[in-house]
Amino acid sequence: MVMCVETPSMREWIAERGIEPIILDLVDRMESAFSRWLEFERAPRVASHSRAGVIELMPTSDGNHYAFKYVNGHPGNPASGLQTVTGFGVLADVETGYPVLIAEMNILTALRTAATSAMAAKHLARRDATVLTLIGTGSQSEFQALAMRAILGITRVRIWDIDPAAMDKFERNMAGWGLDIYRATSAADACSGADIITTCTADKANAVVLKDGMVTAGMHLNAIGGDCPGKTELEPAISRRARIFVEHEEQTRIEGEIQLLPADHPVEPLWRVVAGLAPGRVTDAEITLFDSVGFAIEDFVALEYLDEQVRGTRFAGEIDLITSPDDPKDLFSLVAVPSMMDAR
Amino acid sequence: MVMCVETPSMREWIAERGIEPIILDLVDRMESAFSRWLEFERAPRVASHSRAGVIELMPTSDGNHYAFKYVNGHPGNPASGLQTVTGFGVLADVETGYPVLIAEMNILTALRTAATSAMAAKHLARRDATVLTLIGTGSQSEFQALAMRAILGITRVRIWDIDPAAMDKFERNMAGWGLDIYRATSAADACSGADIITTCTADKANAVVLKDGMVTAGMHLNAIGGDCPGKTELEPAISRRARIFVEHEEQTRIEGEIQLLPADHPVEPLWRVVAGLAPGRVTDAEITLFDSVGFAIEDFVALEYLDEQVRGTRFAGEIDLITSPDDPKDLFSLVAVPSMMDAR
Repeated sequence: MVMCVETPSMREWIAERGIEPIILDLVDRMESAFSRWLEFERAPRVASHSRAGVIELMPTSDGNHYAFKYVNGHPGNPASGLQTVTGFGVLADVETGYPVLIAEMNILTALRTAATSAMAAKHLARRDATVLTLIGTGSQSEFQALAMRAILGITRVRIWDIDPAAMDKFERNMAGWGLDIYRATSAADACSGADIITTCTADKANAVVLKDGMVTAGMHLNAIGGDCPGKTELEPAISRRARIFVEHEEQTRIEGEIQLLPADHPVEPLWRVVAGLAPGRVTDAEITLFDSVGFAIEDFVALEYLDEQVRGTRFAGEIDLITSPDDPKDLFSLVAVPSMMDAR
Repeated sequence: MVMCVETPSMREWIAERGIEPIILDLVDRMESAFSRWLEFERAPRVASHSRAGVIELMPTSDGNHYAFKYVNGHPGNPASGLQTVTGFGVLADVETGYPVLIAEMNILTALRTAATSAMAAKHLARRDATVLTLIGTGSQSEFQALAMRAILGITRVRIWDIDPAAMDKFERNMAGWGLDIYRATSAADACSGADIITTCTADKANAVVLKDGMVTAGMHLNAIGGDCPGKTELEPAISRRARIFVEHEEQTRIEGEIQLLPADHPVEPLWRVVAGLAPGRVTDAEITLFDSVGFAIEDFVALEYLDEQVRGTRFAGEIDLITSPDDPKDLFSLVAVPSMMDAR
């Protein structure tokens, strides 16, 4: 039996544990994992591209656990009532090769992405940052806002989306969470006075949701929507002005904002900052850019944490995916004598 | 909801449909897939090696469906009562990126491997072949024997395993299946008079389960146990005497028997034979070798077939792995208001 956390159980666990406590835990664990980055396998994810979108497998291992996530990105899906991104994750035991957990990983990914963003901002934003701007108020936006509050204490949020209904949704969802929300009239308006700008839009295109003129000295940019070849969000002039931090450079060169820059443009791996091997923000005036595309180690952290949190609780279901004949060499016995098969 | 075929349902479906009818169907579909081989994505599988074994992801797509298999190989597992190989598979819709099927894939892999072996033997063994030798009577052996009978009409089987209990198990499982079984006293004894020799042993080592002297003119060799770097079964002199057929050359050069030969040693892709673009067996005297390591397209065929067979039947379960908020941009609504969550 493999432990299974289906969507309803994931929702109930999050409701009980709380979004901000989960994010605080995840940031702690993310910092531990980033600090021992080189102990993980770090292959770029395996992508299958089609006209409609992309399907990816994101595996990694630390020699104790193995984890992978299945995730898709299909920008046309919402038009037919489907999610742009869905996903599920699997945690396995390296010693036996047996999967030990399979879990919904759409909501969990939003939590791990928000935790990663907040961890980066903790090291890269100005210490006196008080204003967060969100460009794009889709699926990720509320998680981003709550993570920045949990980790940096930010309560002032300026929002912009080309879809007014998405802004309505954000305001509705965040009512009662104690945030001071300003609904902007344009991206430029939203960015005015921001300390941190998070771009989280979904178009599979080299879009310019953030223009050079909107970015001023001292800002920290958290660019999470550009994560595929041909899918970026920032005017390249911004990246050229910023100090750039990345997850796994090999993958980010292909998928991140820096795909629009020369292949030797300098970047700093975020794990080196977290591990204390490289400086994060150095001056109050510099522009920092976390060119985030999402990496397998972040999913690994989320799955390992989920496993510890829910194993043995009412949130843990089971799925019978692994055969277990009495004699491990006798697979055939499972199908040979139907009349003697176990009653279900 | 994703359709799910757990182990008990897989067993019941196989019991109802029958092993040999399934293999006949799979060989038909495998031939169709091999005939359109170049329409599939053909990346080598993604392997995570450890001291104890290997965990692999095997993805492919034909532009309509995407499929991958999770599979491990841990030779030490049986000593602790675990399977050497376990696995599960996922089929997804390329247009939406949504997974549509998750299935047990240990038993199903045995069926697809046996079907692939039988398809290869159909093109590569002598037409008058009547005797099958099995070196290694572990989990794959009975499926191999039944597939060779279903496709080639072979009823005489000679078996050898260094573990007498494994031979006992084979004889017990095959009692009543109408095979004429000879229990050999050595590998050489088993190979004497064979038309087809299938090697299916599990050690993660460059073993020599088949020696050059055991192989005589006209034999077809079906080598399925050597499938990892450092994991082979044949004395290399045999490979040098044989015409060699492979699945995906790039992967087989790393994982197959030919890892022990020079990198430019000639091989023929099996799909070209199946598609009629290259000859299979040409003379009665030549030795043919199917250096099989298993490829993602074979799993794709098995998962697509399973999906068609079980969808809408009592064998199809469901797993709630995909979130579905009413507004696809409103993921947060699923976790924000616990009191309004759907009752399970």
